[in-house]
Amino acid sequence: MIIIMKPGVDRSTIDPVVQRVEQLGLNAHLIDGEERTIIGVVGLPLPPTLEEQFETLPGVENVVRITKKFKLAGWDFHPTKTVIDLGDGVTIGGPELSIIAGPCSVESEQQTLDTARAVAAAGATILRGGAYKPRTSPYEFRGLGEQGLQILAQAREETGLKIITEVMTPSDVETVDRYTDIFQIGARNCQNYLLLEEVGKARKPVMLKRGLSMLLEEWLLAAEYVMAQGNPDVMLCERGIRTFETMTRNTMDVSAVPVVQSLSHLPVIVDPSHAAGKRPFIAALAKAGIAAGADGLMIEAHPSPDHAMSDGAQSLNLDEFAALMPQLARVAQAVDRSFTIAGVEAG
Amino acid sequence: MIIIMKPGVDRSTIDPVVQRVEQLGLNAHLIDGEERTIIGVVGLPLPPTLEEQFETLPGVENVVRITKKFKLAGWDFHPTKTVIDLGDGVTIGGPELSIIAGPCSVESEQQTLDTARAVAAAGATILRGGAYKPRTSPYEFRGLGEQGLQILAQAREETGLKIITEVMTPSDVETVDRYTDIFQIGARNCQNYLLLEEVGKARKPVMLKRGLSMLLEEWLLAAEYVMAQGNPDVMLCERGIRTFETMTRNTMDVSAVPVVQSLSHLPVIVDPSHAAGKRPFIAALAKAGIAAGADGLMIEAHPSPDHAMSDGAQSLNLDEFAALMPQLARVAQAVDRSFTIAGVEAG
Amino acid sequence: MIIIMKPGVDRSTIDPVVQRVEQLGLNAHLIDGEERTIIGVVGLPLPPTLEEQFETLPGVENVVRITKKFKLAGWDFHPTKTVIDLGDGVTIGGPELSIIAGPCSVESEQQTLDTARAVAAAGATILRGGAYKPRTSPYEFRGLGEQGLQILAQAREETGLKIITEVMTPSDVETVDRYTDIFQIGARNCQNYLLLEEVGKARKPVMLKRGLSMLLEEWLLAAEYVMAQGNPDVMLCERGIRTFETMTRNTMDVSAVPVVQSLSHLPVIVDPSHAAGKRPFIAALAKAGIAAGADGLMIEAHPSPDHAMSDGAQSLNLDEFAALMPQLARVAQAVDRSFTIAGVEAG
Amino acid sequence: MIIIMKPGVDRSTIDPVVQRVEQLGLNAHLIDGEERTIIGVVGLPLPPTLEEQFETLPGVENVVRITKKFKLAGWDFHPTKTVIDLGDGVTIGGPELSIIAGPCSVESEQQTLDTARAVAAAGATILRGGAYKPRTSPYEFRGLGEQGLQILAQAREETGLKIITEVMTPSDVETVDRYTDIFQIGARNCQNYLLLEEVGKARKPVMLKRGLSMLLEEWLLAAEYVMAQGNPDVMLCERGIRTFETMTRNTMDVSAVPVVQSLSHLPVIVDPSHAAGKRPFIAALAKAGIAAGADGLMIEAHPSPDHAMSDGAQSLNLDEFAALMPQLARVAQAVDRSFTIAGVEAG
Repeated sequence: MIIIMKPGVDRSTIDPVVQRVEQLGLNAHLIDGEERTIIGVVGLPLPPTLEEQFETLPGVENVVRITKKFKLAGWDFHPTKTVIDLGDGVTIGGPELSIIAGPCSVESEQQTLDTARAVAAAGATILRGGAYKPRTSPYEFRGLGEQGLQILAQAREETGLKIITEVMTPSDVETVDRYTDIFQIGARNCQNYLLLEEVGKARKPVMLKRGLSMLLEEWLLAAEYVMAQGNPDVMLCERGIRTFETMTRNTMDVSAVPVVQSLSHLPVIVDPSHAAGKRPFIAALAKAGIAAGADGLMIEAHPSPDHAMSDGAQSLNLDEFAALMPQLARVAQAVDRSFTIAGVEAG
Repeated sequence: MIIIMKPGVDRSTIDPVVQRVEQLGLNAHLIDGEERTIIGVVGLPLPPTLEEQFETLPGVENVVRITKKFKLAGWDFHPTKTVIDLGDGVTIGGPELSIIAGPCSVESEQQTLDTARAVAAAGATILRGGAYKPRTSPYEFRGLGEQGLQILAQAREETGLKIITEVMTPSDVETVDRYTDIFQIGARNCQNYLLLEEVGKARKPVMLKRGLSMLLEEWLLAAEYVMAQGNPDVMLCERGIRTFETMTRNTMDVSAVPVVQSLSHLPVIVDPSHAAGKRPFIAALAKAGIAAGADGLMIEAHPSPDHAMSDGAQSLNLDEFAALMPQLARVAQAVDRSFTIAGVEAG
Repeated sequence: MIIIMKPGVDRSTIDPVVQRVEQLGLNAHLIDGEERTIIGVVGLPLPPTLEEQFETLPGVENVVRITKKFKLAGWDFHPTKTVIDLGDGVTIGGPELSIIAGPCSVESEQQTLDTARAVAAAGATILRGGAYKPRTSPYEFRGLGEQGLQILAQAREETGLKIITEVMTPSDVETVDRYTDIFQIGARNCQNYLLLEEVGKARKPVMLKRGLSMLLEEWLLAAEYVMAQGNPDVMLCERGIRTFETMTRNTMDVSAVPVVQSLSHLPVIVDPSHAAGKRPFIAALAKAGIAAGADGLMIEAHPSPDHAMSDGAQSLNLDEFAALMPQLARVAQAVDRSFTIAGVEAG
Repeated sequence: MIIIMKPGVDRSTIDPVVQRVEQLGLNAHLIDGEERTIIGVVGLPLPPTLEEQFETLPGVENVVRITKKFKLAGWDFHPTKTVIDLGDGVTIGGPELSIIAGPCSVESEQQTLDTARAVAAAGATILRGGAYKPRTSPYEFRGLGEQGLQILAQAREETGLKIITEVMTPSDVETVDRYTDIFQIGARNCQNYLLLEEVGKARKPVMLKRGLSMLLEEWLLAAEYVMAQGNPDVMLCERGIRTFETMTRNTMDVSAVPVVQSLSHLPVIVDPSHAAGKRPFIAALAKAGIAAGADGLMIEAHPSPDHAMSDGAQSLNLDEFAALMPQLARVAQAVDRSFTIAGVEAG
């Protein structure tokens, strides 16, 4: 940590700052510049709120933290990339690109099974489907609850797809755990820390969607909450951030893919459906995500999007999904990623 | 709702859209312009996801919703302003400006009681203090839990201040309810809908902080979640939104005050501490909030901010707080708001 | 245009609005809903500021414009994609992906020629280089001016590359026109309308960089300024928008590529260098741009980035650039785009 | 400047960085922490692009600049607040609050004179009015040009008001200079550096509107461009930034007032009209601006806003303006600012 003093302050102001550093068991190194003094603070571990304690001391202009706040999610203590093994040869984070597909909401057995069969045939390995739905308005459809989970489990049994579904509150973790293969934490719950800890204890893989205005560092700290409970299997999902532009539902921050990969060993998934919010742009964003190096995609697909109970406008129909997959395989191949479609290795 | 068709589409494309409208029991009115046709959809109630069902139909360019999605929070069904009565003459939303003050975290009995006495003497009527703290990093201090609530209750007993404290998860609502006068829902939990419903059932006033990138409409829909459970006593708290500017912790959206007041009868509070993030700017933002018409302020105060366990950089010390209050009273008076300091009516 | 009246207003309020519509030579169609009346305004051409004239009339709640404000840039009057022909077989917007490369600033003859030779050998067809540099601080290097243009022209002569360079002010257009093949309008000048008109008169292709917080519609209207002067050869360049995220210099809005292409026939270029701001992320963003369907890329390259007089941190060195090109060609091929490297057709 | 090395790099990587520092005539001070080394760079003056030169060196993780990039605009070399004297007792930046009012565009002699008389009677001292209008669409009204300037001058003669009007391009500076008392640089031209320098040479006061996504530091550097030409009389105008919220035209960053005042001695004006974009919210934002400490306000007023040729929706009519002024005077008084209305000292 570096403490930058205001220009022109003298020893009588600097000394108390140095003493405060030393009281905390840390060492202070002074650099006297021509305009001002800066104090390098050395010693480990730095308390996480250390900056705040110094920012308000007299004469201090600014405090710059150097060490990152996340540990488990970073490369320093985990120099190999995390590959999450879902069993039956399905992994996330390895050379194979993972395709997660399915409806926004589980609406019925038939809708879910039709979708599951179609996306499995087209090359997806994981089925998404919401049983508990966070909705902006209290008057909207909120999912089938445990019945939805049962339908997902039935789809898994029939198709062999792995399952991912959202859990919205700590008290539902146990129920969802009985059915799902991956816990999804939605963008609105990305800093619901007690929920993060609860799925951290559950020891099943967790996908953390990025919040609408979440800094990349905050995202990795959210992962840290899960990991600090002993659960190493976290993947991150970029699904668009909120900006001033209104022609897309969100703005897909495609640079999040390489930047997070430079900071963390965790797999990164891209969700072009929520990013675009509009069907015609999903294909382009899906390809961009793969080209940027994403470890997988999550795409909404529905047998009849214009009758969907949620997010129809951003869902592909099953034919569109099937037609998109070979295109995605070509891009995956172009960035040295393998991709299996219907038993045929494309990459 | 208005459905805007693409230019040049003919009846064979328009008719299915009209039929869809009528299948839903609604009426369609066509306006044939020179470039395109628009369809006015009339009838009540409109399903909340109606737009999505039409956006994807062939030939539809855009769908514009006219009716607002929130009902209980809006003026239409509640034409008088909500005044929340906390008992003992303390109200929020009436002519008297409400000042909520206290430390970010309850750290100890002495810290809390010292603060409570000082802010009460300076004119605050409500004591804030966090017992359950959402922290960006899992390694930071997270509050004293129920012990913190007990300290707050003790401070209430001694000073007569009402109490507001944050609740982070549904399973804590019952515990917090035993102690608090107002539930605070933090910015990170603003769309934690199950939590919103749980405090909605608890029948105590609720303060909803605005999320970092929350649209005003989404904020009112979050209030709607609480109100739909039968709890009418909701107040909204603007605490800064996230923008590109980094010299303040957040950007205080002062226009949220008059805009929300034009849409809703609910009281609006401003939190200049979280908005500024830095002590020297709190006074200016507090005054701006009052001048814009806020019903109250929430200000962080601490006996020794540079030893605070959280948010010290944005807390006033007790002398600064006491010195600020008469300045705030003058601004309150200038916008016809009364404000009582230490038993003296200033406004 | 649609005028949405407030709920409950009656004919005495609605009639003056209708009269105002008719005074303007337009037709008003009323739809009486159960809550409110909406007025469809039909007739062409709608004055561009029509909304503003109605928003303030008594009883009007909101006004929604349906027709787009841009004409020349849109598909309606130009149903084929614009292909800009720079001569000598170099085009932008056709099946061949265009690579623009070169230093941020022209610093010397040697630096420029070395770069030009290297990027030409690697497959670029257009050389970028700033002779007039907009700099955030008045104390920074601002380019060599006309001497820089002469160096660029010399590089063109030697390598056969086409040239693009920024023009910052109307009075420089004539000078720049003597040397350049494409005028670049920088992000800071994207709404410098007199400059846009001046390059519109110059009848040479123009590349419009998107402003840091420019809506896509505003961008197309900026293109409209150029085109309205009779210059049809406009290309748009996405170079990142400003958001809350600070780990990249800007946030590359990759969705701008498909969205603009759905609205406009103009070619879209992506600049991963300015978007990323950091060298390690350029390759991923370049690939993402191609995968999303961009018509070309603009990449900063420099013989010695860490001695560059501007933007060194986001420039590739010449070896890095040469190594990246075959990777880009593979992605181009995967989205059916041809791409010629060193005389070898890759796509 | 501080150079932060990556963890674990050794002397063979650090030494070349140190040598580079010394080659530039600066001194390097090393602090060896437990995880990494940081290098303090001392010596003046630091070249403005120094960071870029080091960010890309091997082993460097990050570079933090400590000294501010602006000089003339900051307190360090100008420890007293700037008070701009417009003559005839009209100042900006002194104890008296300045009210600038008038129409968006000068449309006619009568419209301008009617407005001028009314706002003068109500207490404004400066008349705004656009003769050269930047418009998002090329098809909108762009102002009367020099004829508009003549009308403004006539209004000055008749009312004694000072005049402010926008200049959009360097070649118009001379013409505008013949009429105006203050040059206005609009938000879209805030980084049109050649224009900034041209008004810097003109030696008349300049008002710089903040760009839609301009960092406060960039704004002060724009002021620096003007001041570096020898013109010290610069005032800054906060007029709202662009955020995700769409219920206001822009988001007024009221915190810009105290933050800029902490960094700079230049006066700060607030423009609630452009910030709100909607008439009903102007009063609240105007009061908020004063309460936050602004040195003045710029408010759009028009005899008949719903017939205005631009910005009618955000203009007060003349009665509304006159009614607002005493309310503003009360807030001004509450923050110890004087304010003269119609010859009566209110503050």
